[in-house]
Amino acid sequence: MKRCTILFLPDKREVEVAAGTTVLQAAARAGIELKTVCGGEGTCGQCAVSIVEGEAEVGQGNMPRKYREAGYVLACRTKALSDLVVEVPDETRVTEQQVLLEEIDRGEVLVEAEPDVLGEYSFQPLARKVALTLEEPTLTENASDLTRLLAALNKQAGVAEVRVGLGVLRRLPEVLREGNWRVTVTLAEHEERAEVVAVEPGPSRTPPYGLAVDVGTTTIVVALVNLETGATVDRRGSYNRQFRFGDDVITRIIHASQGPEELRELQSAALETINALTGELLRANRLDREAVAVVFTAGNTTMAHLLLGIPPDFIRLEPYIPAAARFPVVRAGELGLEVNPEAPVLSFPAVASYVGGDIVSGVLVSGAAEAEPVSLFIDIGTNGEIVLGNRDWLVACACSAGPCFEGGGITFGTRATPGAIQRVEIDEDYEVRVETVGGAKPIGICGSGLVDCLAKLLAAGIIDRAGRFQEVDTPRRRDSDDGPEFVLVWQEEAATDGDIVITESDVKNLLRAKGAIYAGIRSLLKTVELPEEAIERIYIAGGFGNYLNIKDAVEIGLLPDLPREKYVFIGNASVKGARMALLSREALRGAEEVARKMTYLELSAGNMFMEEFTSAMFLPHTDLSLFPSVRGTAGREGR
Amino acid sequence: MKRCTILFLPDKREVEVAAGTTVLQAAARAGIELKTVCGGEGTCGQCAVSIVEGEAEVGQGNMPRKYREAGYVLACRTKALSDLVVEVPDETRVTEQQVLLEEIDRGEVLVEAEPDVLGEYSFQPLARKVALTLEEPTLTENASDLTRLLAALNKQAGVAEVRVGLGVLRRLPEVLREGNWRVTVTLAEHEERAEVVAVEPGPSRTPPYGLAVDVGTTTIVVALVNLETGATVDRRGSYNRQFRFGDDVITRIIHASQGPEELRELQSAALETINALTGELLRANRLDREAVAVVFTAGNTTMAHLLLGIPPDFIRLEPYIPAAARFPVVRAGELGLEVNPEAPVLSFPAVASYVGGDIVSGVLVSGAAEAEPVSLFIDIGTNGEIVLGNRDWLVACACSAGPCFEGGGITFGTRATPGAIQRVEIDEDYEVRVETVGGAKPIGICGSGLVDCLAKLLAAGIIDRAGRFQEVDTPRRRDSDDGPEFVLVWQEEAATDGDIVITESDVKNLLRAKGAIYAGIRSLLKTVELPEEAIERIYIAGGFGNYLNIKDAVEIGLLPDLPREKYVFIGNASVKGARMALLSREALRGAEEVARKMTYLELSAGNMFMEEFTSAMFLPHTDLSLFPSVRGTAGREGR
Repeated sequence: MKRCTILFLPDKREVEVAAGTTVLQAAARAGIELKTVCGGEGTCGQCAVSIVEGEAEVGQGNMPRKYREAGYVLACRTKALSDLVVEVPDETRVTEQQVLLEEIDRGEVLVEAEPDVLGEYSFQPLARKVALTLEEPTLTENASDLTRLLAALNKQAGVAEVRVGLGVLRRLPEVLREGNWRVTVTLAEHEERAEVVAVEPGPSRTPPYGLAVDVGTTTIVVALVNLETGATVDRRGSYNRQFRFGDDVITRIIHASQGPEELRELQSAALETINALTGELLRANRLDREAVAVVFTAGNTTMAHLLLGIPPDFIRLEPYIPAAARFPVVRAGELGLEVNPEAPVLSFPAVASYVGGDIVSGVLVSGAAEAEPVSLFIDIGTNGEIVLGNRDWLVACACSAGPCFEGGGITFGTRATPGAIQRVEIDEDYEVRVETVGGAKPIGICGSGLVDCLAKLLAAGIIDRAGRFQEVDTPRRRDSDDGPEFVLVWQEEAATDGDIVITESDVKNLLRAKGAIYAGIRSLLKTVELPEEAIERIYIAGGFGNYLNIKDAVEIGLLPDLPREKYVFIGNASVKGARMALLSREALRGAEEVARKMTYLELSAGNMFMEEFTSAMFLPHTDLSLFPSVRGTAGREGR
Repeated sequence: MKRCTILFLPDKREVEVAAGTTVLQAAARAGIELKTVCGGEGTCGQCAVSIVEGEAEVGQGNMPRKYREAGYVLACRTKALSDLVVEVPDETRVTEQQVLLEEIDRGEVLVEAEPDVLGEYSFQPLARKVALTLEEPTLTENASDLTRLLAALNKQAGVAEVRVGLGVLRRLPEVLREGNWRVTVTLAEHEERAEVVAVEPGPSRTPPYGLAVDVGTTTIVVALVNLETGATVDRRGSYNRQFRFGDDVITRIIHASQGPEELRELQSAALETINALTGELLRANRLDREAVAVVFTAGNTTMAHLLLGIPPDFIRLEPYIPAAARFPVVRAGELGLEVNPEAPVLSFPAVASYVGGDIVSGVLVSGAAEAEPVSLFIDIGTNGEIVLGNRDWLVACACSAGPCFEGGGITFGTRATPGAIQRVEIDEDYEVRVETVGGAKPIGICGSGLVDCLAKLLAAGIIDRAGRFQEVDTPRRRDSDDGPEFVLVWQEEAATDGDIVITESDVKNLLRAKGAIYAGIRSLLKTVELPEEAIERIYIAGGFGNYLNIKDAVEIGLLPDLPREKYVFIGNASVKGARMALLSREALRGAEEVARKMTYLELSAGNMFMEEFTSAMFLPHTDLSLFPSVRGTAGREGR
């Protein structure tokens, strides 16, 4: 078979592939990560590149106008027929920096101060070190090393039932003698069982550490936690390397369903990401891998399956059944995590296919399940997960919001990277002022910017309540081949090759997304027969939520019209909850109780959700009585 | 570095090695197993080969006369300096056939009939299959596959707490749907915990199987047990491939102590042996490896360490402390056993460094620990392990008998292979009649033959009570460079290159060996302050014991002078005990109780053993009152 050499610029990285290989595959092999939401299906239009030299077969695909005009092709639809030189523009490239800015730094800002992290839960870390003095063996006191160790653990630390794995046992004889029968045992305690994770000779000079891992679909964050003080020593985050197999859980499940090899690819990608971050953390803090005694992960149900290599196939097929909702405790070594191989790896239980351990973690962090007043918990991403309840009951649902709040499916949609428009002001002359992440030249609009934009377009009368573009007197309002659109930023002021616009089709996508979330909230309320006013507190979790302007979100009917002071942002609830579990067995039991208590409402069963969704496809809603505070502002005609 | 090609004849196997490599190492790499007791130290004189061509550096070593005279060199002391052609004589080669004959077939003969195997223990196999019908999931009944399985197990099989490992979980979604929500679960139950070993779609057509594995220092025997009927379906045995690292536990420990790589070599050798036997069993019985749901092993403490890859280093160093006496349950897949990777691998607990799970198994099989009368349990090999007690108390010791009862350290010693002398008659004219294993031409003397020979030499007045050779009038009694000797078989009648003799030095070795065993028995009796007459039953375990002539053994003072009817042979107690444990959780608990109850007496502590040993270095003993039945027969002068 003919081989082609593909040179990627400006990286100057070369890779040799068989003729017919797509540029996307070649890029992945060259270590260049291109954005892709659809996993190489040609539908998301993100992986645009420019063919500078050589012959390629360019297939059809859904390509955004800005890329088409720039002469780009979709890497996933373009096959090499000869040696190629390919230029990868910055905007189609996944960089750690972007992702970090988007979710991790934002999370950091909002993480509560250390002392508060456990709330009312007591400090009972999942691992601790115990110094022991063993009796030296003699000819007549000749019990085995292990028996001797267990006796000392029982007598000196009050631990009676304890598992000692082969890995520890193999090193025991040497360690006991090296320490002259004084040793430090690292004990992990969970699920009513204790296990010895490590035995060190003599007294130990280091505390035990834990890793709190947020296994997000987009990003993975690892926090290094000192289990003696409870402090987060350091944290790192990056995009999840599963990225190259698709941007959302569905494309990844489809990939994993192709066979064991593909499932392993996804598992390895997640493990590699965690290992890379962990390696950085350990190097930066001068720790060796043995220092990490326990790992706690939080992720959605699909991520939990993929991390453990459990087939997620049926998560996406009706009736949407995961293989497991509670996950077995595994050894780090067995899984391939590069910490102490004996360290147990735990994870939050899930509730259902689309309400996972990340949501359980969020509810734990919010404290909603411990309080008497009724709370609403919302995590908005590609899926909107919503939980309603209090300490006596919890009901949850998941609604597919689509990727718009993460910048997908929107002409100039982008993640919240520098240059992403996050605030929009439209004055009486339809002149626009935008505010971008980091104050950089605009590159597109991120989720929070889109919510703001939609509210302002409505307020300015540029669109009506149904999202239809109106005839307004400004050159910004124009018609293109793709329908009506509104120019937010002229090319001269933008970092793009053309004007940054929002189209009627973008508005419709946003309407569907916000309608789905709000319909989910209404469905839960209807199910438990409570009015909106019964909600005492609303917790907003996740990266997108953190920068959301609540007033805008209420004005477009995304969130309930309740007093601003009822809204609380809780940031990256996954890593925060995982850290709570690391530091408190009581909190972990709390999370398990949350999962047990939570009733999952499948929205696709029955008509309730579809009825609510249809009613919510207006701005803010067909039933304006639900949005009393919005009435006066919506639409220029209302001024 | 110079490379040399070594050609082994008559195998015609070639191997390339670095110059300076020993012929023993080269043989191992060529897959040719040479006998070696010392593990390549040049002391056992077993690995004799003939250099046919080429230049070699031949080092000093302890070489038996018969080999020296034949022009052989020790493979372990001979280093290749050029390409070599090496002839390997049959007698220095380990063959499966030999070992099989020696221990396995003998064990087979003596295994009790099926129905009796469990004695009073109830039939509660370690694994069973349970057919389950799960409720089919719907949009509103959307619990996970695992939750659904566990609910059915609880409801339909009454199993509440059960572990499901990742391996099973990974296959669960597909199996549940393939079986249309009817499945068969293989459950392993042990240590009060249940675990799912396999889930099959639909009803199962095969019973669950277990492997009972005797991990002997010399031989490994694997029995395939049907856990539904309790029948031993088939069994296979072969020499333990650790053989090449030395014949006894001490040489293997020394090898393992050199480092992790050497320890792994020993572990792999044992695993390879078990896997080869298991593969044969599965093929012969048309089963796939998934059919085996549980593995139970019995072996001495060193073998248990090596099988699990636990460093045995301190077993041989005072105060002789093993790393563990109770061994963790591991997964077959984790260990590298080629059965269902989820199958738990269990083993009998040990009592001390030199009283291992094989002895616990033997005591279990004997029933000694369940009975009211006091019993003595003896397993004679390189070490003699002795247990005394009843259902209320047990005391055990181990005494180093040396390798003579296995044919080591004796000029014409051999294992009990065809041609081994097992019976000796000496008439009044000092003429000798011998009986060999399989009736073949004599090749040497095995353990039971040596006991017989010693008794007959004494009875004939050829040696005195101290083992000294007397002047008797026969050409068979002669003096060689190595001292006095007696010709048992003239060369013309033998399959050897010279006359088969027994030397004074051989007799001294035998005296020390039998003295050690008897002194061990006396030490136990003294410790519990009981007379020999208190012993109601004596159980003789192991391959050597099975062919032992009790009358001879008593006459030389190896075994107590008690009525013949008190002696019981119990054959290969390891594989028998392992099978009992597979078939009865109650029996397994019984074995654990045996280990807990057993007090280990370290003979090297204090003077008691040495005093007893010194007194026992006569035939039968310095204190003839201990051997009332022997008095009349010992020595020709007593005729």
